[in-house]
Amino acid sequence: MKTLILTSDDTRAIVRRVGLDAVMDEMIDRITTTLRTYDIHETVVPVRAGFHYETPTIGLIEWMPIMRNGNRTTVKIVGYHPRNPTDYGIPTILATVSAYDTATGHLVGLADGTFLTALRTGAASAVATQHLAREDSKVVGLIGCGAQAVSQLHAISRCFDIEQVLIYDIDDSVLRSFPQRISILGLRRAEVGVADTAAILAESDILCTATSVDVGGGPVFSDGQSKPGLHINATGSDFKGKVEIPKELLLRSLVVPDVLEQAISEGECQQLDGDNIGPELHDVVKDPERFAFAREQRTVFDSTGWALEDHVALEMMMHYAGELGLGTEMEIESISHDAKNPYEFVANHVAISTNHTPE
Amino acid sequence: MKTLILTSDDTRAIVRRVGLDAVMDEMIDRITTTLRTYDIHETVVPVRAGFHYETPTIGLIEWMPIMRNGNRTTVKIVGYHPRNPTDYGIPTILATVSAYDTATGHLVGLADGTFLTALRTGAASAVATQHLAREDSKVVGLIGCGAQAVSQLHAISRCFDIEQVLIYDIDDSVLRSFPQRISILGLRRAEVGVADTAAILAESDILCTATSVDVGGGPVFSDGQSKPGLHINATGSDFKGKVEIPKELLLRSLVVPDVLEQAISEGECQQLDGDNIGPELHDVVKDPERFAFAREQRTVFDSTGWALEDHVALEMMMHYAGELGLGTEMEIESISHDAKNPYEFVANHVAISTNHTPE
Repeated sequence: MKTLILTSDDTRAIVRRVGLDAVMDEMIDRITTTLRTYDIHETVVPVRAGFHYETPTIGLIEWMPIMRNGNRTTVKIVGYHPRNPTDYGIPTILATVSAYDTATGHLVGLADGTFLTALRTGAASAVATQHLAREDSKVVGLIGCGAQAVSQLHAISRCFDIEQVLIYDIDDSVLRSFPQRISILGLRRAEVGVADTAAILAESDILCTATSVDVGGGPVFSDGQSKPGLHINATGSDFKGKVEIPKELLLRSLVVPDVLEQAISEGECQQLDGDNIGPELHDVVKDPERFAFAREQRTVFDSTGWALEDHVALEMMMHYAGELGLGTEMEIESISHDAKNPYEFVANHVAISTNHTPE
Repeated sequence: MKTLILTSDDTRAIVRRVGLDAVMDEMIDRITTTLRTYDIHETVVPVRAGFHYETPTIGLIEWMPIMRNGNRTTVKIVGYHPRNPTDYGIPTILATVSAYDTATGHLVGLADGTFLTALRTGAASAVATQHLAREDSKVVGLIGCGAQAVSQLHAISRCFDIEQVLIYDIDDSVLRSFPQRISILGLRRAEVGVADTAAILAESDILCTATSVDVGGGPVFSDGQSKPGLHINATGSDFKGKVEIPKELLLRSLVVPDVLEQAISEGECQQLDGDNIGPELHDVVKDPERFAFAREQRTVFDSTGWALEDHVALEMMMHYAGELGLGTEMEIESISHDAKNPYEFVANHVAISTNHTPE
């Protein structure tokens, strides 16, 4: 039984051949469709768990499993190590995603989860923004301009006509490199400018936070003047105690978590009582007219990152790989012809390699 | 950053080149050493969790993570689908094991977990049997003669001089094929005979249960006459409600779980109050003299299968692969040179493939 392995070269070849914009558009479409048809009885998504530690470095490794009943099980295993860029020159988030056949337990496929995490987190924000921001939103603010900010801006730019991008990061070099990093996004009309967080809050129609703020170090900006229809995508929270958005602003906003239980445990919703938390994103996507009023209000998408999004992303990449004939099929599990003999291969080898007499 | 992938051919080549007996001996040694030095503060092993379901077939997919502080994280993802052999001609247990660098989150390696599960479950039983059975044990009983029984017998035969093997299975064809399946184990002195469970219980020095009994269907034999120094390895329990050993026999025995919390949840210890549960196996291995008395008593190793054993097994296989130059290095994670630009490869491709003018 073969496992389809997509190397990073395969992932990149898919994106190059399909086109970065087309891949993001497809990701946004698939997440929208998946949320619209999401049925809690058909999909089992436990709250993710993981190892959190401070030695050898501050970090976590989490497993994010999901099962579509009678179909596939997907597991993303994701590391979050904020010192990776400075210590090793590698991304903060490293991840792989694997899929299993629920009928047999067989490992069906394995692929990169690093690019996929950026892609699906951006796409999820785009879906939230399409449903919760004003349709004429033109100014995007970015607080935290690392890897995730690139795909946030990309995804939003696929759905809105962006005229201005206001950026802030605690690291000047990250700010300086940002225009180059988004140069392929085709935001020719958009002017990119550095601003302080107060100005970004005041001027943005759509604000994305994507920081590696320390536990207890948030929020990453102070409450202040903001547009009445401001929509925020808060994507950085993924630890107990790590938050990005001022509580007072949350209390004045409709807060929409991706998945409530996880958001209460490690998202912006940590700061809120249940009464102050709005519907989950899938509720909004299922009934957009009911929530159309929210476009004119302040809204916050509390994006903690959902295994369902990873499942959709892996399915999409495996679909593309099939269409394009990419990926390597390898047999990983040691499966005997005789299911009840784990040592069969040893005996067969003896029979093949030696010319022994019948016993 | 490369991931070392061991295919099933690599796994088999390791076993053939090192030798099946030598691999099992090494596995037993490594588990013994690991248990002797096991420190709860240095190793984090959450109770495994998983998806249990009845459609499309009865089965479960579980993730078994473990972290050695400051070193490696290992995750086995294991499927248990008792209809696999009859429905698909593949093993009940299919599994893969992967290792992650705790400093960065990088996927270091991926290998088969199917053969490894048989190997390490056998080796763990051998370690328990060495510490809890009479040294002159000569008669091994096997109730349930599928894939796991083969490696149980193999591991025990590496530590005891077996003269007689008594076997029972509810499926006659499994009984008939058993002698052929163990023909490579070098048990030339041992006579293999079919017996009923009462006779096996009465005559065995060491008894291994390795069944796929249904939830609520156990125990798999009735209490009855047994030798005063009988040692049982109960390996089949891995579900809530699934047990193999009669409660009355457990109450007359020293019950040693591999890991207490998991055994209470899904092992034979489900049937017991805390007062009736003995030390964990690592406690016994750390102080064998203190538990030497148990050799003369009835003892039960409640083996639910521990992630620590999988960690040790994968480390061993990766060590062998390094020594023998086996395995395939592949880059799975999409890692940009610029850690803050997930889209770098798209831009680079443009730069390489087109001859555009400077902007």
